Amino acid sequence: MVLGGLAMRRLIEEVFLATFDTPELASMEDQARLPLGDVIASGDRLAFTTDSYVIDPLEFPGGNIGALAVNGTVNDLAVGGASPLYLSCGFIIEEGLPLEQLRRIVEAMRDAAEQAEVRIVTGDTKVVPHGKGDKLFINTSGIGVIAPGVELAAHRCRPGDRVIVSGTVGDHGAAVLQAREDLALEGGLLSDCRSLSGLVRDMLSTGADIRAMRDATRGGVAAVVHEFSSASGRAIRLFEDRLPVRPEVRGVCEILGLDALHFANEGKLVAVVAAAQANWLVARMRQHPAGRDACVIGEVLPDVSVQVRLRTLMGGERLLDLPVGELLPRIC
Amino acid sequence: MVLGGLAMRRLIEEVFLATFDTPELASMEDQARLPLGDVIASGDRLAFTTDSYVIDPLEFPGGNIGALAVNGTVNDLAVGGASPLYLSCGFIIEEGLPLEQLRRIVEAMRDAAEQAEVRIVTGDTKVVPHGKGDKLFINTSGIGVIAPGVELAAHRCRPGDRVIVSGTVGDHGAAVLQAREDLALEGGLLSDCRSLSGLVRDMLSTGADIRAMRDATRGGVAAVVHEFSSASGRAIRLFEDRLPVRPEVRGVCEILGLDALHFANEGKLVAVVAAAQANWLVARMRQHPAGRDACVIGEVLPDVSVQVRLRTLMGGERLLDLPVGELLPRIC
Repeated sequence: MVLGGLAMRRLIEEVFLATFDTPELASMEDQARLPLGDVIASGDRLAFTTDSYVIDPLEFPGGNIGALAVNGTVNDLAVGGASPLYLSCGFIIEEGLPLEQLRRIVEAMRDAAEQAEVRIVTGDTKVVPHGKGDKLFINTSGIGVIAPGVELAAHRCRPGDRVIVSGTVGDHGAAVLQAREDLALEGGLLSDCRSLSGLVRDMLSTGADIRAMRDATRGGVAAVVHEFSSASGRAIRLFEDRLPVRPEVRGVCEILGLDALHFANEGKLVAVVAAAQANWLVARMRQHPAGRDACVIGEVLPDVSVQVRLRTLMGGERLLDLPVGELLPRIC
Repeated sequence: MVLGGLAMRRLIEEVFLATFDTPELASMEDQARLPLGDVIASGDRLAFTTDSYVIDPLEFPGGNIGALAVNGTVNDLAVGGASPLYLSCGFIIEEGLPLEQLRRIVEAMRDAAEQAEVRIVTGDTKVVPHGKGDKLFINTSGIGVIAPGVELAAHRCRPGDRVIVSGTVGDHGAAVLQAREDLALEGGLLSDCRSLSGLVRDMLSTGADIRAMRDATRGGVAAVVHEFSSASGRAIRLFEDRLPVRPEVRGVCEILGLDALHFANEGKLVAVVAAAQANWLVARMRQHPAGRDACVIGEVLPDVSVQVRLRTLMGGERLLDLPVGELLPRIC
């Protein structure tokens, strides 16, 4: 399969254009032209983000690289306080990728974009020879707009603030690990891959003083809480007994001696909010399908120190480390 | 080299942040937040584009993949009539890529961005195991803004319009081919990799009725002129004796039996303009360093037909085909 010229054009028409029903893509121009009026109406700042997705395997229980590439970039925009508007997609295809698999992945992108109410408006496709890639890499970049007054930043965390997680921890990492290692576990473990933009919209509409939000992807909840501690200069304590962890995920952790706090999530956010509003915000989050299992899992301490402490089930306290190497390479 | 957690953070700090002096990147947030006022002041539409760069070799006479990734995306914005503002960059690094080479490439990105007056404001880095990539792939996505009244589109080409090229044809393709095949030719053939945004700004400021512009990358000038013919439904004639081709490029073509019109360029555009304004526009283009060798190379015919004809040096006329396969894989 040497693609290029007419052959490339046919691939683009038959797979991408046939799936994505977007006038900007159909124009076959090298850029999307987007009315600025739509953007100005909803905010005063542009948000711009990019991510490449290199996950192995391409398809896993609960999703595939296409759904991940849309939701991951949508979530990066959303947790920064932006309403996601437009996505680009860049495909690097290794020769030999089955067309049927590519089609499934592209259809998952379309469905994820519809659910997240974001539009895929421009794209690019490159093909590399067999052995010079790994089946498929996808880059998505995203544009969103931030409403006036929304100011989320990790350095805004204050002593006493509460740490909230939007749901169960570690599902994506455990699901991919299980698929990859072929662990024979019962219970149908699924990735939590989904858009958080609706949940974030609901959270912001409450007017609660949310200091910062992050989606807990590579490095898991532990990495996000470390970033919050590092940016604010305050120690943070998490309570092990409050962490929502599915029994199946707990099972994978026990077999492998790993911590669910280090596992990647693809549909969970961690937020820091003023203490007085924490329970109220959690109650509101639970009304949204993406926040059904939301709960308070920790607090920002007065200690001027970059560290994350875990109050264990046994009542003791230990430091929660940031892993030096990558726990699970190619998890996203 | 397994990167992740602290190791990844160190790579990002020591290579990317040390080179790109951008506050949005230094914030280590997952998105750039950009004042919308700057955008509104200069136009009424956003332009959004993306490209992945998979060129082999990474470094070639006249440039490297980093310069290419910046200029290529800047040029996609510019030829659509947009002023380029912001770029994202996504790196997919194969384990084993020498750090020194990565640094050179990232420095070339910084220099190219400075020259094109565009800012790299957000990024992402993924590492894949040895054998699962090919040294380095870079995706850049770009945001620009289009001024009111600028309407470039291939379907606007009219019979009698002139086809202009901004300079010599085929330099990038010939330079990469020479580097790859180790052809022993004299004359220091260099890629023409450069930003076209300044040239386009000058062209638009003339007020000439420019119907459409494209940068002539993969597929070369032939592919662009085919797109113009296809979108407008009119045949287009090119004149071989007017094509600016460097003798060194002509040499490569003769040795390999290939046509410079099919060779990729990375700093050349093709424009279609109303006939009465063509010579005047070319004169203006020649005042810009990126347009020194600009000239009229063809005309839009009244014939309702999707085809490109070449009036040869011998005075005959033949059809100029769009290649079915890719002439030079991984040329960008």
